Parts: sequence; C-alpha cells; structure tokens
Amino acid sequence: MPVIEFAKQREYGVIINTYGSGGMGLSDNIEETYRLGADGWIFFTERALENKGEVLQQPYPVVLGGDYLSYGKCDQVTMPNTEAVRFAVGRLLDTGVRTIAVIGASPDMHGWEDVRDQRDGTQSLRIQGYVQAHEERGLTVDWRYVIPLLGWNQHGGVQAAASMLDSLPCPQSVLCLNDAIALGAIHELQRRGLRVPADVQLIGFDNVPESEYSVPALTTIDPHVDDYAKHAVDMLIERIEGYSGPARTYTTDFTVVERASTKLAR
Amino acid sequence: MPVIEFAKQREYGVIINTYGSGGMGLSDNIEETYRLGADGWIFFTERALENKGEVLQQPYPVVLGGDYLSYGKCDQVTMPNTEAVRFAVGRLLDTGVRTIAVIGASPDMHGWEDVRDQRDGTQSLRIQGYVQAHEERGLTVDWRYVIPLLGWNQHGGVQAAASMLDSLPCPQSVLCLNDAIALGAIHELQRRGLRVPADVQLIGFDNVPESEYSVPALTTIDPHVDDYAKHAVDMLIERIEGYSGPARTYTTDFTVVERASTKLAR
Repeated sequence: MPVIEFAKQREYGVIINTYGSGGMGLSDNIEETYRLGADGWIFFTERALENKGEVLQQPYPVVLGGDYLSYGKCDQVTMPNTEAVRFAVGRLLDTGVRTIAVIGASPDMHGWEDVRDQRDGTQSLRIQGYVQAHEERGLTVDWRYVIPLLGWNQHGGVQAAASMLDSLPCPQSVLCLNDAIALGAIHELQRRGLRVPADVQLIGFDNVPESEYSVPALTTIDPHVDDYAKHAVDMLIERIEGYSGPARTYTTDFTVVERASTKLAR
Repeated sequence: MPVIEFAKQREYGVIINTYGSGGMGLSDNIEETYRLGADGWIFFTERALENKGEVLQQPYPVVLGGDYLSYGKCDQVTMPNTEAVRFAVGRLLDTGVRTIAVIGASPDMHGWEDVRDQRDGTQSLRIQGYVQAHEERGLTVDWRYVIPLLGWNQHGGVQAAASMLDSLPCPQSVLCLNDAIALGAIHELQRRGLRVPADVQLIGFDNVPESEYSVPALTTIDPHVDDYAKHAVDMLIERIEGYSGPARTYTTDFTVVERASTKLAR
C-alpha cells in the first residue's frame, strides 16, 4: 500500500474505511467519514459518481483516485489508461501482429459506438486506446475479440481465455486489462498446449510483483502506482495544510515493461 | 479481505488502521484505537508482544490474529503452522524424497537448538513442523538446507533459491514458507533449466489465488483463511454483544492442495 508509506514519510497516519466497498457507492460512506474524523480523505472509486460529483464537495480536503470523473470538484489522480493501452497495442501492431484480443471488456461493449463517447471508467478508457491504436494504422477492430469479463482476477482470465478459444481461432496476441487476468489467461493458454510467446503473445496491465515471476515472465503496462500514490498523498496534505487553489488533476506516466511473454524487444 | 466480508454479513463495518505497521509495534497503536472509537478491534501482529500481552488488556473487545502468543489475555485465532508443515513434509518424505530444503527461516536459525523452544512466531512454528516430520521418521535434518530469508515475497524467493543453488546440490524438494516465496523460487529454478516437479518438487503455504495459476500450478498448504477470518469476526462480535467468558483460542484446520509442482498424488 504505497499510500500508507508516503503518508508515513510525511508523518501522517492512515485510516482505511472499507465499509460499503463493493455493494454500496461512495456517497453511502460519507457519513462514516465524519465519524472517523480524519483531516482529509482519499476516495478510491470503482464506479461512476452520481449527481455529477456532489459527494466530492465536502468540508474537509478530498482527493479522488480511480478512473471516474471528479467533475472538477476536487483534486484527482489518474492513470493514462487510454494512452498506455494505445501505445502497447500500437507496439504489437507495428511488429506485424494483426489479431489482438483484449480481455476485460464490459459485457455491454459490442462495438465502437458502445465505447467511443464514454468519458470515464477503466474498461471504456482502456478499450478506447485499443481501438485508437488500430484506427491510427487504418486497421479495423474485430469486435469478436473484445472479450467481456466480470471478475478481474486469475479465475476470470482462465474462463475468458477458455471461452475465447472455444469459439474463435487463437489470436496472435492478447492484451489483458490487468495482470491477474493475464496470469489466468497464460495458464489456460499453456494448459491447451499453446506456447507463449511463440504461438500467442500476452501483455498485462499493472506490473504487479507476480508478473515478473510468472513463467514466462509477463510483459505488462506499468502505470507508476508509486507516483500515483505519492501525488495523491502530496495533494491531500497540501489541502490539509491550507492550499485552497482550484482542483487539480495529476496523471501518471507509464512504461511498457517488456518481458518474455512478448517478442517486442528488438 | 475476508474479515470485511464476514463483518458485512454480520452488519458491522470495518475500520482498518495501519499506522505503525512495519516500524512500530502494536502497543504504539493503542492510543489511536481510542481516537477511532470502534466497538472492538482485531489486532494482527507480525511480531511477539512485549510485556506478556498487557497491550491486549483493553477496555474494549479484542481478538488477536497472527502467530504470536496472546498469553491468555484475549480471544485468539491461529493457523496450525507446525502441524500443517509437519504433515506436508511428512507426505514428501513418505514418497521417498530425502533432501527437502525449506526457504523462509530466520537468519538466526542454525540448528534445532535455535528453534526447539520457541513458543510462537511464524518461522519458528513452521520450521518446528519441518524438523518434527524428519524426526518422526528417524531422519536427520541437514541444516544447510534451512534457507534464511528476510523478504517474504517473490523477489526473496528468487534470491534464496539462487543462493541455495549457488552453494549446494539441488534438493529433491523445496518447501517455501509462503506462496510468494514459492512463486519466486519456481521462477528461478526453471530459469536455471531445472524441471518442476521432475527435478525438484515445490510446496508453498497459503493457497493464494496466484498459486493455482502458476506454471506449473503450485502445490500448497491451505490454512483455511476464510475460516480464520470468520472466527475472528464471530468471536469479536460475541464480545461486543456481551459475552464475557474466558479467553478462547480458535485454530483453523488445513488442507494440502496437490497441484502440478509435486508428485504427491497417487
């Protein structure tokens, strides 16, 4: 938890309140934040905020994390979701790969019209990058290879890879929208006798510790989570200590960490 | 975080206070628990409690988790550390395996006399099981294969496996004291051209989701973490709701989940 580390370096303590994670939205947790009486809160949200972010207008300092709009109501840290995927998919396309599956779409994404106008959301932003990389090269996306997935974990990766291979020819490459999905997908591909990367290349997203030690080691998009956490903490503490300027957005940089699951390295 | 899930099922919220994790001990956090005003606390500790657990005598309900003694001061949940390792190592020995390395010892464990009398601590309790399995079969432990490790993560597993193989013949089997270590060790063994399980069998501890999807999938000791969390929550809520009987200890059961990294299955 880098937020805890960076807060400690600044001599602040961290309270984590998870009540309501999952079933309920952020607005249901606001009352609890008053009871716990922290100097400020970093809200991580995994769903869109209703009411155009009014929940973010609190009497205490707030920084928003997650891939959803803050509507300019508070400081925000984000990842370069679209740009990072666009770059990584572009790298694959530029080496001559033509069939790239993407695992981790929402079940309601059946074509570009379902994604194009979305302004937030992890899946939408990343899939936009996937499509843009194709469009920039005059290539058409085969939407059969945009594979939906509900559980963003290893088991979900196994199931999505299995259902893809049961109904479609094996793609030349697979981009998984997080590393856990990718580790499941690698497992299922190899279980079926497909060689990674000789038969199918794989890229994940997150650069979790496990990605370095999978067999083969996983190429992945590193969204610089430490930098993300550091800026969330720094912006919050600035507000706590009196800064009252307009709401800011900090977007991390990214790196494609090339390992053995792809043949990208020249 | 199963504690959160089980607490939610019982309609309790969960506050996590991590300030002081790492550098400071539990006693430094007690003041903070008053400020946060929860109905009770589950303390997880990764180090021995000083003062014979006086920190555990609080005016609010307390349940202790972790592998250290509560000195009968409060309810406690534990894992069967010694028994589970004894059983798993015994299984290997009973198939004829004779050289079993264990990765994850403390750097100060050089022989049985450094371990035998320890009454708590993850490493001590698990290494005791490793030695007992040998002793029960009239076998002698080769302490060169009790490999020390500070960082219980993938990187630590890589380094420990590397340093072992640089100085000793490859053992027939390796027990890693958690799955992260094992995933790093598998990676390093395979990088050196050793086949798992043909040349060397591996067992982990924890049954984390990654263990099912490593290549090869990891045999591991499952300490029933869900059951552990459920009992921690149940015991705490019983205290919150008025139960005032003597301090109880709940120890989970365990399962050896046999996967492709061993040849245990008949």
